[in-house]
Amino acid sequence: MADLLSRRFETMDQHLVLASASPRRRELLSHLGIPFRIWEHPFIEQPLCHESPESVAINLAVSKSEQVARRIEPGDIVITADTIVWCDDKLLNKPESRDEAISMLTLLSGKTHTVITGVSIRSIIRVTSFASVTGVHFRELSQEEIVFYVDNYSPYDKAGAYGIQEWIGYIAVESISGSYFNVMGLPVQKVYSELIKFTDY
Amino acid sequence: MADLLSRRFETMDQHLVLASASPRRRELLSHLGIPFRIWEHPFIEQPLCHESPESVAINLAVSKSEQVARRIEPGDIVITADTIVWCDDKLLNKPESRDEAISMLTLLSGKTHTVITGVSIRSIIRVTSFASVTGVHFRELSQEEIVFYVDNYSPYDKAGAYGIQEWIGYIAVESISGSYFNVMGLPVQKVYSELIKFTDY
Repeated sequence: MADLLSRRFETMDQHLVLASASPRRRELLSHLGIPFRIWEHPFIEQPLCHESPESVAINLAVSKSEQVARRIEPGDIVITADTIVWCDDKLLNKPESRDEAISMLTLLSGKTHTVITGVSIRSIIRVTSFASVTGVHFRELSQEEIVFYVDNYSPYDKAGAYGIQEWIGYIAVESISGSYFNVMGLPVQKVYSELIKFTDY
Repeated sequence: MADLLSRRFETMDQHLVLASASPRRRELLSHLGIPFRIWEHPFIEQPLCHESPESVAINLAVSKSEQVARRIEPGDIVITADTIVWCDDKLLNKPESRDEAISMLTLLSGKTHTVITGVSIRSIIRVTSFASVTGVHFRELSQEEIVFYVDNYSPYDKAGAYGIQEWIGYIAVESISGSYFNVMGLPVQKVYSELIKFTDY
């Protein structure tokens, strides 16, 4: 089944690339129906500046995009992305210990926080970058639930110490405002619309 | 891995049942980590009354719950659910033809509509019912995209002529407001919280 946009990619001899090691981003992008290659790249983490969360997310995605720029060949369209979690004016990184994971989830409990994914799309001659913002409301969590989640799911590779696609996403997330897939790591609808514009030249 | 609520079910010798033929509801419920049985039941569709969409959804779920009530044995806790789509003050049922599917999606294009799932939870001695409401915003769809979706995905078993977990959900849904899983057919977080209250006697 040839997707609309994938037909355009084929006709124009363009090749989509996802420069990301995240299995969640791969899965999300695959739903658009456009064939793509994966680039594993040893990204260097950038220091974060004191900016708005949207700027931080965009800058992280742009930095990754710049790091793969020299690999891009004619026809390649390369996506990079970074997702951050923002709560009470604080940026939540990946937790480095069990205690830090527990205190991050204790902070998120009973509150609305913000998940921002920055995305960069780059060819040899163009680059476009944007941020997608989703509000996520957690109900009040018991300490028992938090400890249960941390001990059974080890969310040490996840900003904010949780994955919305795991058990905690099903039992704790009361509502979201924005794109669900953005919280998982890639705002696929926006990526699709931007790819249409990006290839419309 | 014994889930918190599933331990309570086990201790209290209670058995969760999902009375639904929907594979999506089964998958969603399974994420709560509580073992459950499926009841296939030949539900009789109820005529819809002229009520608020929330009442319509709750009444449909309650009607299903009443239809399985005589099968319930001590310890059984039975979930029934129904999902409706509401747009421009109109209830959108399952489309009966290609033309109807195309005109439903044309109606939804570029607008925010509402998806309401009614849920009933019933034991021998109690029944509790509630509605969960999610707003879904579709970007403007081209006629080509609508026809492509209808011809490739045959959404004739879906109220409103679309499944958010299919291609169209990835390329068209700009944002939602509320629970994503509610749009798929079961507001699992709310079900989890209600089950905690339901078994807390």
